[in-house]
Amino acid sequence: MRVGFQGELGAFSQQAILQLLGAKARPVPHVRFDQVFAALNKGSVDAAAIPIENTLHGSIYDNYDLLLKYDFAITAETNVRVVHNLIAPPGMSFAQVRTVYSHPVAINQCLDFFARHKRIERESFYDTAGSVKMIMEQRPAGGAAIASELAAKIYKARILKRGIEDDRQNYTRFFLLESAESKPRRAAGKTPWKTSLVFSTRNVPGALFRALSALALRDLNLVKIESRPLRGKPWEYLFYLDLLGRHDDEAVKNALAHLGEVADFLRVLGSYRAAG
Amino acid sequence: MRVGFQGELGAFSQQAILQLLGAKARPVPHVRFDQVFAALNKGSVDAAAIPIENTLHGSIYDNYDLLLKYDFAITAETNVRVVHNLIAPPGMSFAQVRTVYSHPVAINQCLDFFARHKRIERESFYDTAGSVKMIMEQRPAGGAAIASELAAKIYKARILKRGIEDDRQNYTRFFLLESAESKPRRAAGKTPWKTSLVFSTRNVPGALFRALSALALRDLNLVKIESRPLRGKPWEYLFYLDLLGRHDDEAVKNALAHLGEVADFLRVLGSYRAAG
Repeated sequence: MRVGFQGELGAFSQQAILQLLGAKARPVPHVRFDQVFAALNKGSVDAAAIPIENTLHGSIYDNYDLLLKYDFAITAETNVRVVHNLIAPPGMSFAQVRTVYSHPVAINQCLDFFARHKRIERESFYDTAGSVKMIMEQRPAGGAAIASELAAKIYKARILKRGIEDDRQNYTRFFLLESAESKPRRAAGKTPWKTSLVFSTRNVPGALFRALSALALRDLNLVKIESRPLRGKPWEYLFYLDLLGRHDDEAVKNALAHLGEVADFLRVLGSYRAAG
Repeated sequence: MRVGFQGELGAFSQQAILQLLGAKARPVPHVRFDQVFAALNKGSVDAAAIPIENTLHGSIYDNYDLLLKYDFAITAETNVRVVHNLIAPPGMSFAQVRTVYSHPVAINQCLDFFARHKRIERESFYDTAGSVKMIMEQRPAGGAAIASELAAKIYKARILKRGIEDDRQNYTRFFLLESAESKPRRAAGKTPWKTSLVFSTRNVPGALFRALSALALRDLNLVKIESRPLRGKPWEYLFYLDLLGRHDDEAVKNALAHLGEVADFLRVLGSYRAAG
């Protein structure tokens, strides 16, 4: 099974693929998210793993837009803890590290580490896993990287310090996407079902309240809601919403029919087992 | 008036300060967002301009967390269009550009430009405005940068190509923060009032629906809502909400009192004029 993702081999998205599908799935790297979606659309990959939100940085609207542009089903979700490791070529000691290369976002998530080790310089790089690849291929003097454990393994580098990130509560949520008619993947445990949907309303006072009544009247549980202004349509909004339940549960079916009446637009993105 | 922001001089946050307060305000750069908040807290700056959401990347949870940690008032908001320009030292022509330095996020927002000009290499840098400062100070051969018009002006560099970003619908929303007892700033035009608040509910079915009834029953208009899981408290949520109105309008006062009854926690972050 070929699974598209954005980034270099060793990216956190590849960790997501491991968690979602195990080691047999073949990760297929792409430079841009739109290329991952296009690859799934033309069938050059069988599925795609894409990040949708992060506990520090919020929802990734770019990818929500791509979900709306294409018509795939979300068949599973997983949460990847973002652990940053200091990684160097084998044989280099921590005392020899002079310059650390990584994506500026990763560097900025390890500021306590750099404050404790002022001798170490920071150099921006376009990608975390790519920085490991680079230090292994080019071996810049005293050069180390910050990236995932998986990146160290793939490029046969060594972890000098594990978990140097400032904040341990840094998780990224990924969706597994497959063709529209695909069935949800079985999760190992018996976690509850979730359904993700997108709808829009005109911004008359109480429009969202009326929309949510479709769920509240059926005792359905919301687990995410987010509004987003519609481009070029002042005061109109898209809402991203996750609820507990399957789209073909009786109560959910009725709620979706009701929501369809009060919303200008409604699309169900998929039902899947909640991440454990 | 000293106004703290994150980034180098010439950052988009400095553009926000210009839009919010005019050219008389003195921008005071900081490396990290928490340092901006700490500076405002101890009075080494009089106000702070912080980005809170972006039309492509969503809400910046880090800064919402800092809003909750401290007790400041939002006194104004503004939207800055993220325009990326190709910037070089004076005298360098476009044909001479060999390498473009910038933050990887900015580089990734100009991929069409790089696809059209394959001879040009990309180099990651920690900051957009910082990359202009660097090419002016160090003058790497054929080195240009991607940053704001303001950055070009500040470092006396020249814009070779304007607006090379892929997506013109890239806006960042900024808040102006001042001490808790500050009054809202007057906006030039007569835009509507907005009030931002944060509240939490236990996740019993319909909890959000009940909370929103406090607004809907008073015909108040929601302009943003976003849920966020509470750390370490499964199935409990924070909600960020913006509504149209001032916190001391009769209907808003009543709605807030009502919301206070049904929410576990409620805080009003400020009332301010909507960005024009």
